[in-house]
Amino acid sequence: MTLPVTIDQTACCTSGTAPSLPLAEAERIARLFKALGDPTRVRLLSMISSAEGGEACICDLTDPVGLSQGTVSHHMKLLTDAGLVTREQRGKWAYFALADGALDAAGEALRGL
Amino acid sequence: MTLPVTIDQTACCTSGTAPSLPLAEAERIARLFKALGDPTRVRLLSMISSAEGGEACICDLTDPVGLSQGTVSHHMKLLTDAGLVTREQRGKWAYFALADGALDAAGEALRGL
Repeated sequence: MTLPVTIDQTACCTSGTAPSLPLAEAERIARLFKALGDPTRVRLLSMISSAEGGEACICDLTDPVGLSQGTVSHHMKLLTDAGLVTREQRGKWAYFALADGALDAAGEALRGL
Repeated sequence: MTLPVTIDQTACCTSGTAPSLPLAEAERIARLFKALGDPTRVRLLSMISSAEGGEACICDLTDPVGLSQGTVSHHMKLLTDAGLVTREQRGKWAYFALADGALDAAGEALRGL
């Protein structure tokens, strides 16, 4: 007697890999890195980080990146919404500083992967 | 005699902030973070990172994220192109592992900001 042999062409794997990261946590991490995933925003963050007193006026950020104030404001809003920088309005101008622990939190997220 | 006084309404700033980061470097960093800026890619990286033997078959990655193999392959291509994972074809299936030092390099980029 011969036993029927079935070869499952789709079978390949021994392990049952499961997502180790809850979706909400993955979304939080992705939001942070998405904000960092643009060369202009990386340069703006770098400028703010190295600015005297740890903060920079929007009026000082436009020329070095060669973009209009509207475009720079848009990038700064994305960075602010992502929690990477804080914004303070003083008269006509907005001043930006790195948010406490924001880059550390991003580094922490990387180490947790 | 009265000297003419001109008030420049656009003047605001004392410092001359300059980009501390060359554009090419900012673009390199942004590419890396853009690849991390998606929740599915964050979950895929996390699964690969925690997989037995440090590598995962594409066939094990689709079900846990609930996406088609085509979509997961696309995400894996973006992660591979960004240098975050390596890809090895074995027969029918592609296997992925974290690229040596890739997450460290991303952490380094964060600290450099």
